[in-house]
Amino acid sequence: MEKIEHIGIAVKDIESSNALFKSLFGEAHYKVEEVESEGVKTSFFKCGPNKIELLQATNPESPIAKFIEKKGEGIHHIAFAVDDIDKEIERLTQEGFQMIHKVPKKGADHKLIAFLHPKSTNGVLIELCQDIRN
Amino acid sequence: MEKIEHIGIAVKDIESSNALFKSLFGEAHYKVEEVESEGVKTSFFKCGPNKIELLQATNPESPIAKFIEKKGEGIHHIAFAVDDIDKEIERLTQEGFQMIHKVPKKGADHKLIAFLHPKSTNGVLIELCQDIRN
Repeated sequence: MEKIEHIGIAVKDIESSNALFKSLFGEAHYKVEEVESEGVKTSFFKCGPNKIELLQATNPESPIAKFIEKKGEGIHHIAFAVDDIDKEIERLTQEGFQMIHKVPKKGADHKLIAFLHPKSTNGVLIELCQDIRN
Repeated sequence: MEKIEHIGIAVKDIESSNALFKSLFGEAHYKVEEVESEGVKTSFFKCGPNKIELLQATNPESPIAKFIEKKGEGIHHIAFAVDDIDKEIERLTQEGFQMIHKVPKKGADHKLIAFLHPKSTNGVLIELCQDIRN
């Protein structure tokens, strides 16, 4: 784990949250991206070496819609940057962690991603992410 | 906001969580600290430029005990590093954010800290922290 790559925050209305986080950071988001397979619309803010990702559901079946229904708006996950996601999945599986994705998949922001199940990580939803190398 | 200084995670049993996060990061915590005024016992893990702070309540009135009762174990707050906490409190107040602490107080890990009310930040509990300069 090299650093906190980003923190994902579930929001109901990404437009008003973009304005809110612009006031907070003193700087607007630098990117928006829709990930259709996940049913989310995202926006990204820079904070030094880290990022904040806002996530709004685009349909009622989206994991973000279900999260907000259950827990309300707020922090959804922590993503850690890793150099080699396959190696890290193998290491964590051997350590006894339960992976939601045993094979990495394409996420937002040009990354390969894999989530750990929060049952095995103290209720914290953790994402691993690795830059896609071309 | 210079970077994510740390993420605070509420846990029931800091000893077993220390073992869990050691497996996750491949490295043990580097520090434990009790903050009596907050009713918490904390431990810190390094992750590149960022930290993870585990928080266990030391009494039933602790904000961490109440958080776990209401929401279960999991991510409790995000702390952002700031260079001048008084200036940042003033700026955020002018932007319309509601501060829990209008005057910074001493927190763990040799920091001056101040929290923003999650009602004004999309349900996210945000801490500002500045190194105490001697």
